[in-house]
Amino acid sequence: MKGIHGGDIYRNYVNIDFSVNVNPLGIPEAVKAALYEAVEKCHRYPDITTENLKKAVSEMLNVPKEYLVFGNGASELFMAIIHGMNPKKTVIPVPSFYGYEYAAEATGGEVIYYQTKKETGFCMEKDFFTVLTEDTELLFFANPNNPTGNLMSREYVRNLLCHCRDKGIYVVLDECFIEFCDKEASVLEVIEEFDNLVVVRAFTKIFSIPGVRLGYLVCSNQPLLEKISRRLPEWNVSGFAQAAGCECALQTAFVAKTVDYIREERLFLEEGLKQSGIRVFQSEANFLLIYSQQPLYEKLLEKGILIRDCRNFRGLSKGFYRIAVKSRKENEFLLKVIGEINWKD
Amino acid sequence: MKGIHGGDIYRNYVNIDFSVNVNPLGIPEAVKAALYEAVEKCHRYPDITTENLKKAVSEMLNVPKEYLVFGNGASELFMAIIHGMNPKKTVIPVPSFYGYEYAAEATGGEVIYYQTKKETGFCMEKDFFTVLTEDTELLFFANPNNPTGNLMSREYVRNLLCHCRDKGIYVVLDECFIEFCDKEASVLEVIEEFDNLVVVRAFTKIFSIPGVRLGYLVCSNQPLLEKISRRLPEWNVSGFAQAAGCECALQTAFVAKTVDYIREERLFLEEGLKQSGIRVFQSEANFLLIYSQQPLYEKLLEKGILIRDCRNFRGLSKGFYRIAVKSRKENEFLLKVIGEINWKD
Repeated sequence: MKGIHGGDIYRNYVNIDFSVNVNPLGIPEAVKAALYEAVEKCHRYPDITTENLKKAVSEMLNVPKEYLVFGNGASELFMAIIHGMNPKKTVIPVPSFYGYEYAAEATGGEVIYYQTKKETGFCMEKDFFTVLTEDTELLFFANPNNPTGNLMSREYVRNLLCHCRDKGIYVVLDECFIEFCDKEASVLEVIEEFDNLVVVRAFTKIFSIPGVRLGYLVCSNQPLLEKISRRLPEWNVSGFAQAAGCECALQTAFVAKTVDYIREERLFLEEGLKQSGIRVFQSEANFLLIYSQQPLYEKLLEKGILIRDCRNFRGLSKGFYRIAVKSRKENEFLLKVIGEINWKD
Repeated sequence: MKGIHGGDIYRNYVNIDFSVNVNPLGIPEAVKAALYEAVEKCHRYPDITTENLKKAVSEMLNVPKEYLVFGNGASELFMAIIHGMNPKKTVIPVPSFYGYEYAAEATGGEVIYYQTKKETGFCMEKDFFTVLTEDTELLFFANPNNPTGNLMSREYVRNLLCHCRDKGIYVVLDECFIEFCDKEASVLEVIEEFDNLVVVRAFTKIFSIPGVRLGYLVCSNQPLLEKISRRLPEWNVSGFAQAAGCECALQTAFVAKTVDYIREERLFLEEGLKQSGIRVFQSEANFLLIYSQQPLYEKLLEKGILIRDCRNFRGLSKGFYRIAVKSRKENEFLLKVIGEINWKD
């Protein structure tokens, strides 16, 4: 497992971590305050029904609370989905987040990797639909995708969902980064049209709380939702996660501010990297996939800057890196350090 | 699921909660301090390898760190064990913790409930071994047992483990309450003798941190341990849990103090309850199973005191209640309130 995720701040000397994709605006103050309060309440069991959290997130998303299930991070939900569905054949477009593969292979089912290409900016091509045949039981994908930052339009995703529904294929759609995007692409508002759809989201990235562990899924198919829930342990959502989540659900202004901030900083970083002769792929998310033939990872680590070496992503190779969009000061510093690297050393 | 666990402080008005079995000495100060510090670090992913925690607990228990796997509470480990083993036939002695049943039934295997009897103080009888036949794949039990507080001797448990090993039966032994007992009964020190044994423990009860979610398992059979681990999600142990756990592992003096405190208070509470005409079962743990024909639960809840109504425990019925051993002040208050109840109202 080690090395698969990269970005290991626990075993590297790191001053600035560009490998992790969390919100550069940090944790909202109210969320941090809720976490402090939760320390004083951790002698109590967390609410096994996650009642308050369900209510808060249901209001935030404008979906019925019966559609919601919470997890100890999105990763717990991926595993519960696979345990509940036990798919014989799963399709995963790559490159993408390793966690889908990790979950899908846990129960021993076959996994088909659909390779998107560098030449087309890692977009799904027309032949993608032909891979999704009737013997496929599950499609796992992310919008926007990670590590590419590619955002598929809502129209494209709806067509994909319709195709899968026709073929009897369940779809797990990871929208963990969608709140960073300034284009409306989520399919949450049409969740009721698709009884084959499970949308997974997290508070981890947008509220910058990966240490807390909190994700949720949205699904309008009640029997499916119950099958998945049955594979989750009891009390899986900690007191810290429930307290933080209730506050996160109220942070609409913070999310809007984040979208503006990311749009501006992504452009700034993109321009700067291009000026350094680095290839930058089209991204709508809070990170950029880049390509360079130089040993960028090693050179930056010497300066205490950690970026994500993407060579161990299935479907990528040496030379691909992922860089988070961070604060202006940090982005400037990164560009400055890159500009000063002596590649001949 | 609602109602199965009772002790629901989120939907009752409760002043004193005798339904939950955590340490009456509360959370050690150093552990609380570590949780406060963890708030400031929760913008980071928790260490996916739980390296520091493994080292700390390995030293605390004096077992190799390769034998340890951590979970988001013991309940996550129970579920991962069942997913990893997928037992066709499981034996669970009852009455016992509902979580074993909840996990064991998740994958659809058969579960045999071995009923211990009130008349013999809910002890395992001689015929228990005859239930553990070669077609049994898994035995799930707790020492001390919950809700009875029964502690089996180490010799008895070793004989049981030998029998199961001979018959090819895996054993999951829940020792979540064993640190409260003043008799040496843990089988951790002989863990290497049994490749069919998984011991599960938690920090939840002894360090009074159910809101944090932290449990661990100990197993000397590496292939089995890997099969179980593979069913756990990545980053399943939060930053809060890892920080708290490292401090908990150093609290040997606190644990020793707890044992003395519980011994004294259990005796005090036991005597007082008996004087009120309530039947108290033999317990070595930090809680007491009692029997009363009066509506004790309802009468106490009127006074803001919550106890555990055990009628929904498989193998128990109306009239059984579980009461935690709490502080002297709280125990005195409980006895006083019980003494003042007018049963005729």
